[in-house]
Amino acid sequence: MAATDSLEEFLATAVDAAKRAGEIIRNGFYRTKHVEHKGQVDLVTETDKACEDLIFNHLKQKYPEHKFIGEETSAANGVTELTDDPTWIVDPLDGTTNFVHGFPFVCVSIGLTIGKNPIVGVVYNPIMDELFTGIDGKGAFLNGNSIKASSQSELVKSLLATEVGTKRDKSTVDATTNRVNSLLYKVRSLRMSGSCALNLCGVACGRLDLFYELGFGGPWDVAGGAVIVKEAGGLVYDPSGKEFDITSQRIAASNSHLKDKLIEVLKHSI
Amino acid sequence: MAATDSLEEFLATAVDAAKRAGEIIRNGFYRTKHVEHKGQVDLVTETDKACEDLIFNHLKQKYPEHKFIGEETSAANGVTELTDDPTWIVDPLDGTTNFVHGFPFVCVSIGLTIGKNPIVGVVYNPIMDELFTGIDGKGAFLNGNSIKASSQSELVKSLLATEVGTKRDKSTVDATTNRVNSLLYKVRSLRMSGSCALNLCGVACGRLDLFYELGFGGPWDVAGGAVIVKEAGGLVYDPSGKEFDITSQRIAASNSHLKDKLIEVLKHSI
Repeated sequence: MAATDSLEEFLATAVDAAKRAGEIIRNGFYRTKHVEHKGQVDLVTETDKACEDLIFNHLKQKYPEHKFIGEETSAANGVTELTDDPTWIVDPLDGTTNFVHGFPFVCVSIGLTIGKNPIVGVVYNPIMDELFTGIDGKGAFLNGNSIKASSQSELVKSLLATEVGTKRDKSTVDATTNRVNSLLYKVRSLRMSGSCALNLCGVACGRLDLFYELGFGGPWDVAGGAVIVKEAGGLVYDPSGKEFDITSQRIAASNSHLKDKLIEVLKHSI
Repeated sequence: MAATDSLEEFLATAVDAAKRAGEIIRNGFYRTKHVEHKGQVDLVTETDKACEDLIFNHLKQKYPEHKFIGEETSAANGVTELTDDPTWIVDPLDGTTNFVHGFPFVCVSIGLTIGKNPIVGVVYNPIMDELFTGIDGKGAFLNGNSIKASSQSELVKSLLATEVGTKRDKSTVDATTNRVNSLLYKVRSLRMSGSCALNLCGVACGRLDLFYELGFGGPWDVAGGAVIVKEAGGLVYDPSGKEFDITSQRIAASNSHLKDKLIEVLKHSI
């Protein structure tokens, strides 16, 4: 494990990269409505690629010995295996559909794992100018102010987030709506924002009490948010209740009071 | 029908009221996390009541001869019948659950109907500082800039919003998730923001392509947004395809290309 002062330096570097990438996203966000559809698709690809290049260049310059896993690079070259080495896991633009449509839940997500554990996390929404940060053992913050997961202990008063994902085969769609159906009897209400990383940050700052998603894109969706949730006093776990595996494309997050209750409701449909 | 210059004066008065109420909401929004749960419920009731009083007092002072329908007053005294007279229909705080949880989709919604038709609309989200306005025949605006519904004509590329509402009897919950199940095969993705008025404004500014909701609270959820959607070139209609009835607690909204396609998908589950 690196010394604490290195972790703080890692965070500062990641914040710097996220803010610069955020500016590219912000510029693109307000342009999507003014380009033809073919142009929109190009704009997404361009923005995604430009942000990942910017973030990787920024981080590699400072930490040439570290490893790097990015959504864009993985889409092009296949996923790099996660090792115990310090590894930066980056989603340059989480909430791509929102970006195309101009729906304001888009973000940059940057996580650093050491020994496969996320220990530094940055999630930045450049449209709402919300910067979520966390360092293992040093707390979680929103725009520099300490944040905490909610203290809600009753499911019936809890606000749940989930997503419908992108798979549209019958068994996935049925499983998705069956889970929602079971949960609606138990929770207060349901939100779908379209950004996995921002849903995790929603749990971290207590806007949401519960979140789960199955079948999201990859570790880049959760590497930044996971440490932020934990440092805000929340829990991150597999929706079955097993330990969270960052490579599994399955995640649940909540405050500590609600974990067993969420798992109990989900167990018939996971 | 009143003269155009009166409509513009009505709008200016409503904007003034919405901005003042928005300040009360903004103050409460950032306090909800710092009060005990009993206190939160009181804070919602207080905020709702304070905003409705402020808006009604402001409007009544200028237009003592007009009629008024508000969510809070209706909850206390029953719904006032909508007549052909100029009637201000007000939701002082749309997105109450979001307000309690600190989820940033909350707004003031103010609509003016004449001859039962919404002709002036104001929807203000004080957290994101987004002011949506519309006047019959005079266009729709977001923070003073002209807005338009999307030009998307393919369901498969469309972003849909709906809500799960508050009813939790089996037939309502099953109908809700069955509709979502059918639609997931047809649209790109699904968002749930928790605010009916802001979903309408999302369609108006093209962030969302489609929205429907059944069983929301009352005309105050839609009176402001309906005119904004229409003035942005969108359509507001009953989810069955029939004409929109502001008192029916059922609404669908989209751009003009997508109306028949949405109705076709919904017809088996409405």
